[in-house]
Amino acid sequence: MSDPLSEVLAFFDEWKPTLGDMLTSMEKRFTDETVWENVGMSKTTGFVEARAFMDEFAKMLPIESGEVIVHHASASGNVVLTERTDNFYDKDGKQIVSIKLMGVFEMDGRKIVAWRDYFDTAKGFG
Amino acid sequence: MSDPLSEVLAFFDEWKPTLGDMLTSMEKRFTDETVWENVGMSKTTGFVEARAFMDEFAKMLPIESGEVIVHHASASGNVVLTERTDNFYDKDGKQIVSIKLMGVFEMDGRKIVAWRDYFDTAKGFG
Repeated sequence: MSDPLSEVLAFFDEWKPTLGDMLTSMEKRFTDETVWENVGMSKTTGFVEARAFMDEFAKMLPIESGEVIVHHASASGNVVLTERTDNFYDKDGKQIVSIKLMGVFEMDGRKIVAWRDYFDTAKGFG
Repeated sequence: MSDPLSEVLAFFDEWKPTLGDMLTSMEKRFTDETVWENVGMSKTTGFVEARAFMDEFAKMLPIESGEVIVHHASASGNVVLTERTDNFYDKDGKQIVSIKLMGVFEMDGRKIVAWRDYFDTAKGFG
């Protein structure tokens, strides 16, 4: 089945257990036109640009794994809205990034057409 | 009827045409326990604190009216998730604030139990 809400929740599950898994999932679900935006911070188009952004992120911070805690999620048509806490850990399991945020996903089957996350950019990752 | 999504959309409509209307609507829909958060920027509990925050906002900027453009909205139970652009205008109709954001509303009938907006705080209002 490919209802949009289930696909987005499955995408979050695919981020585990390693950053490599997250990138594999992004490669599977992004197209060359997927627009991924951390509003006020970054905006990429397509998987290649998204991976380059993730590589920079992983260079700044020794991230080894990510997890998503979904507080609320609902869908209207192909659009899924979420409120989450995204946590990232180093190889010793120490939490190094925790961001409370909202994000919207425009889906086409398993594919992500657009993904925008909104969060307290003044605080940054912390 | 009082389905949560309709109540939230009605709340946005009540912000017009003047800031006074917005405050009247907030007074009607807030309780003494309503937690309103601009994540990373402000957090108030109850209408009295919310009004004081709005008074400060209006002191900084000569806001006369607000409007909400809803890009996406959906509900799960009593929780409504939105992606919007909130615009504010001065008395001559000039736009002085425009914020693209996502917000979540926890509703109890017509009342707002909790409201959290997430946006690019590094950019601020502009």
